[in-house]
Amino acid sequence: MDSRRAESFSDGVFAVAITILVFNLLPIGREALGYRVLASAWPQYAAYVVSFLTIGIMWTNHHTLFGHIRQVDRQLLVLNLLLLMGIVALPFPTALIAEHLTGPDRSGGQAAAVVYGAVMVMIAFFYNAIWWYLRLHAEKRGAASSLPLLRGRPPGFGVGPVLSRIPRWGIGVFGYAVGMLVAGFVSAGAALAVYGLLAVFYLFNHLPNSRGDEPVPGG
Amino acid sequence: MDSRRAESFSDGVFAVAITILVFNLLPIGREALGYRVLASAWPQYAAYVVSFLTIGIMWTNHHTLFGHIRQVDRQLLVLNLLLLMGIVALPFPTALIAEHLTGPDRSGGQAAAVVYGAVMVMIAFFYNAIWWYLRLHAEKRGAASSLPLLRGRPPGFGVGPVLSRIPRWGIGVFGYAVGMLVAGFVSAGAALAVYGLLAVFYLFNHLPNSRGDEPVPGG
Amino acid sequence: MDSRRAESFSDGVFAVAITILVFNLLPIGREALGYRVLASAWPQYAAYVVSFLTIGIMWTNHHTLFGHIRQVDRQLLVLNLLLLMGIVALPFPTALIAEHLTGPDRSGGQAAAVVYGAVMVMIAFFYNAIWWYLRLHAEKRGAASSLPLLRGRPPGFGVGPVLSRIPRWGIGVFGYAVGMLVAGFVSAGAALAVYGLLAVFYLFNHLPNSRGDEPVPGG
Amino acid sequence: MDSRRAESFSDGVFAVAITILVFNLLPIGREALGYRVLASAWPQYAAYVVSFLTIGIMWTNHHTLFGHIRQVDRQLLVLNLLLLMGIVALPFPTALIAEHLTGPDRSGGQAAAVVYGAVMVMIAFFYNAIWWYLRLHAEKRGAASSLPLLRGRPPGFGVGPVLSRIPRWGIGVFGYAVGMLVAGFVSAGAALAVYGLLAVFYLFNHLPNSRGDEPVPGG
Repeated sequence: MDSRRAESFSDGVFAVAITILVFNLLPIGREALGYRVLASAWPQYAAYVVSFLTIGIMWTNHHTLFGHIRQVDRQLLVLNLLLLMGIVALPFPTALIAEHLTGPDRSGGQAAAVVYGAVMVMIAFFYNAIWWYLRLHAEKRGAASSLPLLRGRPPGFGVGPVLSRIPRWGIGVFGYAVGMLVAGFVSAGAALAVYGLLAVFYLFNHLPNSRGDEPVPGG
Repeated sequence: MDSRRAESFSDGVFAVAITILVFNLLPIGREALGYRVLASAWPQYAAYVVSFLTIGIMWTNHHTLFGHIRQVDRQLLVLNLLLLMGIVALPFPTALIAEHLTGPDRSGGQAAAVVYGAVMVMIAFFYNAIWWYLRLHAEKRGAASSLPLLRGRPPGFGVGPVLSRIPRWGIGVFGYAVGMLVAGFVSAGAALAVYGLLAVFYLFNHLPNSRGDEPVPGG
Repeated sequence: MDSRRAESFSDGVFAVAITILVFNLLPIGREALGYRVLASAWPQYAAYVVSFLTIGIMWTNHHTLFGHIRQVDRQLLVLNLLLLMGIVALPFPTALIAEHLTGPDRSGGQAAAVVYGAVMVMIAFFYNAIWWYLRLHAEKRGAASSLPLLRGRPPGFGVGPVLSRIPRWGIGVFGYAVGMLVAGFVSAGAALAVYGLLAVFYLFNHLPNSRGDEPVPGG
Repeated sequence: MDSRRAESFSDGVFAVAITILVFNLLPIGREALGYRVLASAWPQYAAYVVSFLTIGIMWTNHHTLFGHIRQVDRQLLVLNLLLLMGIVALPFPTALIAEHLTGPDRSGGQAAAVVYGAVMVMIAFFYNAIWWYLRLHAEKRGAASSLPLLRGRPPGFGVGPVLSRIPRWGIGVFGYAVGMLVAGFVSAGAALAVYGLLAVFYLFNHLPNSRGDEPVPGG
């Protein structure tokens, strides 16, 4: 199957998932409305902005990743489906954080941040799984211009033969797992700071395009 | 009408239907939130995962099926619409199961599982109806490379001239009907096991592509 | 602007509108669930089925209509937007009917059926408006192969120079207005029968394709 | 990255955002339903119509804008994402206005209108940001036929070298900021009138297409 079909289906799922984040905002102000009520709902706005940008950045990276794929098989489709299952679930921990971050019980916000981290670990894991699968089947599945990248060592990935095979989002599994620990044992706020840093990292750092020698447009 | 239009509309419907499954997760934790509350909501997570994979697999099979179609007419559009009507309805029994599986009354979970089976029977029925319609109008509607498959006997379909004309999802109508009986007369859990086995079956077994001699990519 | 852009945007809107009809089903069974509760919710299922098929048929007709359009201008885009505004609103009267048809007060169901008819009158009106606009600007906007149809008299439209210029959905404005009167002064059930007949009419009768001499596939 | 990918993703987001506006209508008539109940809900209908047309017009203008773009880079993708973040948020102030415009407390409606204006200022700001970015990187990012427009002075933009570089939606940032002040210090109704005038302005006035000398179709 041509990879374009899978991409356009994924695009639809990303578009719906990013748009229904607005339901996090809607419960505000069922009763009396004033500037104070609006201001006290700031965790809802923050959660909306962070999750919107996170899903948006993941959409961009999904395209970069699929730009290296020529043809999908059923294994790739299932891996992509599992990746989308994590992305679609993201509004759930977003809503948990929006509701419980400023709640009376500290532990409610922490539990919410743990769930957020767990979903992100799952997403990062399946990004990596697709990448590894693609490297292992580079000849049959990879785009022609991506073969050097898929076979070789991605530029700028640093040290050693192992690390060089881990794409930049490889640190996501590790980073978000650390965030979960911070959420569970330190505080929800500290965990959110970790997640924010990781989002900024992915905004500026990304998988090189097949040319590999420059951060190509859209790469 | 070119079959691509119908496919891209169907893709959109699949993408929205699979994404709104997240609303099954959202009601969790309106009040106090803790690991125990999160854990006790496991039927919601399970229902989300099963229905997400089920719709995802059905999307893949929809593509395989439409890969055999060259041109759609109004009859095919209506059959496809009735198929989509079942798929879009799936979040409804999913929500019923998520809410009633661990409820105090055993019969609530059973009724929910019966509804789930009924929707799946309807979906399997219309997959078969499209397949039969396509075989009957193979010359006018079928893709050129699919004519041998549509006219002949699909490889590996086993015994006899009748069975060989039933596509592999033909067993869905039967299998999900059995699941309904199990749900109504035995238990909801046993029915879910049947549904899970059928989902795994469809994940690995699928309509051959027009080449017919190998489980082609995306087939 | 190429008409394809407007079509693919419209497709997306149709796909979302048809999918969110499932929210009509979701409120069932919040408390105890049994076959009696499920059976008593039949107006919800009926409303789901009727609105799903109605939007599905309108999607098909939208494609037939846009098949006659080569290029859109801002006027056509605005007319199309107003048409979509009616289609997107359809889940609203659908929900009203689902909730009030079997309610204790007869007049609630009637009011709901009046709103349903009003939305359908609006939709039929804008289908006609697009058709008339297209006839008036046939040279600049119409597809080349559709010019004979747009300039001449659509085949089979019956009697007289006026009627022949009214496309088959022209009777929708009239028919749904009659349905509204029936809803307001007779009963909700009788109005639903009128709406059902109109849906069946549109399923089998439709604007001819540019060839005009046969009910072409997808036409 | 080809600009078409970003456009089709944006189209999906627009399609979902415009369709979920119907949820503003759905809460009506949970209890007894009658013509009086339906009539008293007029702010919900008005909010639906205004926001539907606003998002629809923005979709049209988004296409005109992207018609001038040949290739997107990560900066453009992020600017587009921030623009979409505003558009997706629009159902939120729409719901606030629908609920609080006719409420008992005058200030509730005013606060809702301020939020509406704030979201619109954000949207207008990012439309301008994309336009400026495009002018600054015209050679690398602009469509070939748009270079004269991007380098030169857009026709009909009036006086002076500064104003001529502000696209017509440049007045949106200013106009919606004025609307916010009107909302906060005068009344919600007056602010809605300002927003309505701005919507009508954008309906008829728009960024010229690359030809620049006539209001080209779809421009």
